[in-house]
Amino acid sequence: MRTLEVDLGDRSYPIYIGGDLLEQAGAYFERHELTKKSPVLIVTDTNVAPLHLRKVEVSLQSSGYRTVHHIVEAGEPSKSLAVFEEVMTTAIESGLDRKSSVVALGGGVVGDLAGFVAASYMRGVNFIQMPTTILAHDSSVGGKVAVNHRLAKNMIGAFYQPEMVLYDVSSLQTLPNREVRAGLSEMVKHGLIWDQQFTDWCGDNAGKLLSLDPETLEYGLIQGCGVKAKVVAADEREQGLRAILNLGHTLGHAIEATGGYGEYLHGEAISIGMAAAALIAVHRGKEAALYERTVELLQGFGLPTAMPVHLDEDQLISAMMHDKKFTENKIVFVLPVQIGKVEIVSDVTLDEVRRVIAELKGERQNV
Amino acid sequence: MRTLEVDLGDRSYPIYIGGDLLEQAGAYFERHELTKKSPVLIVTDTNVAPLHLRKVEVSLQSSGYRTVHHIVEAGEPSKSLAVFEEVMTTAIESGLDRKSSVVALGGGVVGDLAGFVAASYMRGVNFIQMPTTILAHDSSVGGKVAVNHRLAKNMIGAFYQPEMVLYDVSSLQTLPNREVRAGLSEMVKHGLIWDQQFTDWCGDNAGKLLSLDPETLEYGLIQGCGVKAKVVAADEREQGLRAILNLGHTLGHAIEATGGYGEYLHGEAISIGMAAAALIAVHRGKEAALYERTVELLQGFGLPTAMPVHLDEDQLISAMMHDKKFTENKIVFVLPVQIGKVEIVSDVTLDEVRRVIAELKGERQNV
Ligand SMILES: NC(=O)c1ccc[n+]([C@@H]2O[C@H](COP(=O)([O-])OP(=O)(O)OC[C@H]3O[C@@H](n4cnc5c(N)ncnc54)[C@H](O)[C@@H]3O)[C@@H](O)[C@H]2O)c1
Ligand SMILES: NC(=O)c1ccc[n+]([C@@H]2O[C@H](COP(=O)([O-])OP(=O)(O)OC[C@H]3O[C@@H](n4cnc5c(N)ncnc54)[C@H](O)[C@@H]3O)[C@@H](O)[C@H]2O)c1
Ligand SMILES: [Zn+2]
Ligand SMILES: [Zn+2]
Repeated sequence: MRTLEVDLGDRSYPIYIGGDLLEQAGAYFERHELTKKSPVLIVTDTNVAPLHLRKVEVSLQSSGYRTVHHIVEAGEPSKSLAVFEEVMTTAIESGLDRKSSVVALGGGVVGDLAGFVAASYMRGVNFIQMPTTILAHDSSVGGKVAVNHRLAKNMIGAFYQPEMVLYDVSSLQTLPNREVRAGLSEMVKHGLIWDQQFTDWCGDNAGKLLSLDPETLEYGLIQGCGVKAKVVAADEREQGLRAILNLGHTLGHAIEATGGYGEYLHGEAISIGMAAAALIAVHRGKEAALYERTVELLQGFGLPTAMPVHLDEDQLISAMMHDKKFTENKIVFVLPVQIGKVEIVSDVTLDEVRRVIAELKGERQNV
Repeated sequence: MRTLEVDLGDRSYPIYIGGDLLEQAGAYFERHELTKKSPVLIVTDTNVAPLHLRKVEVSLQSSGYRTVHHIVEAGEPSKSLAVFEEVMTTAIESGLDRKSSVVALGGGVVGDLAGFVAASYMRGVNFIQMPTTILAHDSSVGGKVAVNHRLAKNMIGAFYQPEMVLYDVSSLQTLPNREVRAGLSEMVKHGLIWDQQFTDWCGDNAGKLLSLDPETLEYGLIQGCGVKAKVVAADEREQGLRAILNLGHTLGHAIEATGGYGEYLHGEAISIGMAAAALIAVHRGKEAALYERTVELLQGFGLPTAMPVHLDEDQLISAMMHDKKFTENKIVFVLPVQIGKVEIVSDVTLDEVRRVIAELKGERQNV
């Protein structure tokens, strides 16, 4: 077991990463002096519940905690105000009080939803993250919680830090292959924006990571969370530096939106976005090797790096404008400077974006 | 114009209280360096909009701000997640961004609703309070924002501080009489919990306050807000001291709940609750004069102090238990020690509560 401290003053919290941690949930609750007088609400989804819920309940109950659970449909549509209200109903009916904890047992969807419940129930109760996806190594650091509005993703939410994150790598063994790859995309991103050595390590260990080798995963997740924690600690409320976390996301979000959020997983979309960012950087004078290395890395994880030919260029552009705003045909973009280092530039033009979309459509369609 | 600084470290903000401030909204926005690039959303209700919205819009627009508004039905039912979502829709469709401001123009209902919108839209944008009721002198200090769940009031919300409060006493002139009385109930409460001199001043100036004399109102509001600000500054997140603000509220909430939230205004219900708290204190050994003075004060404002005979005792008790919880038949209560001073006791018994309910039903039913 490894511990990473996320340093946010009096909102600091530890991330525990290791095997079989869900079975020890009760002990971790006690370690954090969470009261046994108030009920604990576990929020999870229809895929995760049959696989992992029982372990958490048994452990908490053996330690003397009273638990209730609320199971939402797996998938992004559960990040809605309607489902949020249903979870609130369960919380009230189960008698949760100000000292209660809300546990998110699942991926980023459950984490974001349950986190916003924890932030808002009685104006804020304890929040415990138990991520069960690789992608959630990203969402479990940073304190961003939210639900979607039908007009825009993550529009309604809060900054709310958990008491602790219990990251059980054993729980990742049941993750579908495609979710594994998509989650590793954010891990590679954390390398690309911050740490060349870690990026190289990711490249060298792609096979072990994809096959969910526990030791390798543990190290990769600690490093990935560590990069995010450093960035967030420097910029908790997203005023500046934190924007580097958006490498690949500007175009990535547009791909998700244009593909109707069913076709591409987030991790896949940002993989294409990272390839695009590298290509823009090359067009602006960086060596071609920067783009080549980026693509090689991502493809090593079975991630897509070509622009899907059926996505309409104009639709992609207008989705980007919805997300970020072009000012005088210029847009803010995170671009690589070299492997492990990025910069935020505010003058990427519409033409540059159109050019990489076209060029990446010409690439071999690898997924 | 008077200014009161609410002292909360880097979340501190000023309350401006004076005449014709709504007409100067634009100047105050400029003073607070709120950007003119992002649209401003004004949330108000169907009663307030025809009376006061235009003034704010004209002032902001003359200063170069782009404004949009969202008008909700007047009344407590608008403090719902459904209405919250509608306001969010307006915010998104109007292109509000992270630098935008959300203005609450109205009473506590609009303040709580718009405040939670401001807290949650894109995880938090600027919040400006423009209270138009006397009761809102209470809700405009403290940072509590919320909507109701159908099972419980104020259950879903946040602690979120405004950038500033613009309290235009001129706007209070259009307030219905009963709302004036109910609002003054909280003002008297602020005297009773903290400041004997101010309490006496309230008693002496009841007539002027009820007739909305601007100078008198301005002074009373500053003092009332001042008490609340001091309490909140000492206990921003409601860990201890802040509980004294609940004088009269334990029973008051039960009266509101039992009366179905239509029959009693909040200020009326807590008036009865304050009389009850004083009577419990007398039963526990304080001089009868403490109760008599409390009742005299409240009646001086035309506020009720007798328990309505038709409210069922068991229903009241069960509503209280829903709200606060009796532990081994004991409940936490705020009780007066003398005029201007209260204490929090945790051992008020069910029998004591039943006794005052019965005795206060015997009082002359003054409203
Ligand atoms: N808050 C943040 O900072 C942040 C950062 C990145 C992403 N996100 C959000 O996270 C969400 C995506 O996260 P995600 O990819 O984890 O999605 P997810 O929660 O939908 O999980 C992906 C799928 O895997 C299933 N699953 C989860 N754990 C499993 C397990 N152990 N075994 C088998 N199946 C399992 C889920 O049921 C789901 O079908 C998006 O909504 C995104 O907006 C938030
Ligand atoms: N956040 C807090 O700390 C806090 C504290 C106390 C009360 N509250 C909340 O405040 C609400 C009650 O506040 P309220 O009494 O201001 O209620 P309100 O907002 O419903 O206003 C009362 C009535 O007066 C009308 N009105 C408002 N201003 C007017 C004006 N200038 N002229 C004519 N009519 C006007 C409104 O349309 C409404 O019909 C409750 O929901 C309560 O929970 C919150
Ligand atoms: Zn991402
Ligand atoms: Zn009140």
